[in-house]
Order: sequence, then C-alpha cells, then structure tokens
Amino acid sequence: MKVLVDLSVVPMGVGTSLSGYVAACERVIGEAGLSHRLHAFGTNIEGEWDDVFAAVKRCHEVLHGMGAPRVHTSIVVGTRTDRPQSLDDKVQSVQAKV
Amino acid sequence: MKVLVDLSVVPMGVGTSLSGYVAACERVIGEAGLSHRLHAFGTNIEGEWDDVFAAVKRCHEVLHGMGAPRVHTSIVVGTRTDRPQSLDDKVQSVQAKV
Amino acid sequence: MKVLVDLSVVPMGVGTSLSGYVAACERVIGEAGLSHRLHAFGTNIEGEWDDVFAAVKRCHEVLHGMGAPRVHTSIVVGTRTDRPQSLDDKVQSVQAKV
Amino acid sequence: MKVLVDLSVVPMGVGTSLSGYVAACERVIGEAGLSHRLHAFGTNIEGEWDDVFAAVKRCHEVLHGMGAPRVHTSIVVGTRTDRPQSLDDKVQSVQAKV
Repeated sequence: MKVLVDLSVVPMGVGTSLSGYVAACERVIGEAGLSHRLHAFGTNIEGEWDDVFAAVKRCHEVLHGMGAPRVHTSIVVGTRTDRPQSLDDKVQSVQAKV
Repeated sequence: MKVLVDLSVVPMGVGTSLSGYVAACERVIGEAGLSHRLHAFGTNIEGEWDDVFAAVKRCHEVLHGMGAPRVHTSIVVGTRTDRPQSLDDKVQSVQAKV
Repeated sequence: MKVLVDLSVVPMGVGTSLSGYVAACERVIGEAGLSHRLHAFGTNIEGEWDDVFAAVKRCHEVLHGMGAPRVHTSIVVGTRTDRPQSLDDKVQSVQAKV
Repeated sequence: MKVLVDLSVVPMGVGTSLSGYVAACERVIGEAGLSHRLHAFGTNIEGEWDDVFAAVKRCHEVLHGMGAPRVHTSIVVGTRTDRPQSLDDKVQSVQAKV
C-alpha cells in the first residue's frame, strides 16, 4: 500500500531549539531511501506503508537515544485506491487552479 | 516501545456521514486487543508501537474494502523514556490542576 | 458560525511535565463559557467560531505569561452547513454502530 | 502576536477531487496579504494572529459557499517569545544540520 505522509516530530524536555533533532529524523528518512521534502512544520514523505512507518519508529528511537525524554509526533497519512498520486501531483493540481 | 496515540480517521469520497466507517475502525482497534477510548474527534489508544500501527494499517485496508476511495488519517504518537504514563494518567494529571 | 474543535496545546522549553499548562488552558476555556471535554491528547470544544478562537488565543497569552517561551498548538475545526451536530452527536453516532 | 501556522483544509461531501477547494483557500490567504507557501499536505503561513485566523475563517465561508457541506481543517500554530523566527528560519535551521 502506497502512502503519502506529512510527518512532524516534536522532542520535549530538550529546551526550545529542536532543529538538531528534526535534522536527525530527516537523516533517518533519507537513509531509508524514502522520497521526502522538508517544510517549516514537517516533512512530506512518499513510499510504501511499512517502509514509511519503520522510519517513523526509527526516528523515535534515535531521538530518545539523543537524550529526548519525550517525543510527540504528528503523522498525517493518505492512501487512495481510485488512482495513483504523488506528492508533486498534489501540489501541482492545486497550483494549476490558484 | 509503549505508545499513547490519538487516532482520527477520515474517509473521503463517501459523502458526509462518516460514522459507519469510524465504527469499523473502532472494531479493528478493539479486535486487536488495544485499550482505547472514543472522543468526538478521534480515539485515544495505548499499546505497543507495532500493535497500534498494525491496527492503523488494518483500518485503512478495511475502509478501502468498504468502498472509501481515499482515507486521510491523523495520528498523534507520544513515547517517553523518563517514566511510564497511561491515558488515565494524562487526563488525571490535568484534572487535578484545573 | 458554530464550530466543533479539538484543541491540543503543547508548551515547549518548560521540561516534560506539561499538565499545569494544559490545566491553565482548560480554565481559560471554562471561563469563556465554552462547552468542553478533556481527553488524553486534547480538549473537545463546541461554540461560536469567534468565541472559540478568542479562547485559543488567550491560552497562548496565558501560557507565555506562565513562562513558556514557545507554545505549539494543534487545532482541528469542523463546520457543517447540512445539519446541526454537537460533540455528543458525533460520539453517539459512532457508538451506535460499533 | 506573530504566528507561524500550518493550515490543512479538507472539504467533505464533495467527492475525492479537492484541489479546486484548496486553491480557493490559497487565494483567500493571498488576498489577505499573508506570506504563505504550499506543500503537499497544507500551507505554511506567517503573519499576525488575528489576520491569519480571519483568513482561516474566510476559507470556511468560501468553501461552504462553493457547496461543501462539511469543512474539516487542521491548524498547527506556533508562537514564541524568546526570539523572532520566520518560516525560512525554521527550514534553514534544519537544513544546516542534515
């Protein structure tokens, strides 16, 4: 099952500067070979369900390993059976109509 | 890895009445043996990471099987290494201070 | 415009114990006279659009006033024009089908 | 109060093709003079609290006016008092560490 995902990872109990933790999670996603694109509130990802969620779990493990006592993550997942759709498709279909 | 999760499943392309789909996902979560509690925007769940995410994947499969061409799900996941915490703990620690 | 809202407030830079901050926001919502119900990941609220969002803004002000340098809030908002719906309606329509 | 926001608008009861509705909301945000950037799951916005939330309310009105009987919106809002931060700052601070 192919998924499009928006992932937002928030480590807690580590102060206010979170970018080093977010960058570590970006590396996990890249090392998993997943297509992804960073934005100011998270990362758009596309891939197979199991691959994407294995990477999300690995992010939690890595962030705890870096010393974050709590990790709070938001995941938005879209699947569809009517037709294939990529991250680029989603953006372009809106931009064509703005 | 123990997780507390808030799950919100939104089938699309099926009109405006979604409760039958949400109920089907509730049954999936219950059949997985996961402790869970429904609220007006989703379901709080507690369990092991792999068990919870297997149930979420199963919800997508079941809703597509019911005819939903798109399923859009929001998952909030919390893990912590400093101390154990249940769903009840989270609610009670706030209520004690209101 | 009537809204149903799920509100989740996460103060950052204040350590790992957030319940005092969440409780302060609960009091803001209660003092605004809004019907609301706490769950383990947030609070379901119903009311008029402007009243609800004024309370959310007030929560940010109060939490910064308590010393939180960052406040990260998730709001899910539902409006519908086809028929009236309360928080209770949403929960009961699912429970009736589980 | 300056806010950074991630906005995701989901009209319901209008079938599976949502891009025309999302584009209408993009125009509302642009006409409000708000700096914003589209991604595959939503739109990052920066501006003053009241201006941003007035635009979100206007999106709901416009989408209902286009015939959507239900509108389901997710808003993530960040405010901080420790230092100013733009959408670009957030992306660049992560990219510098990946």
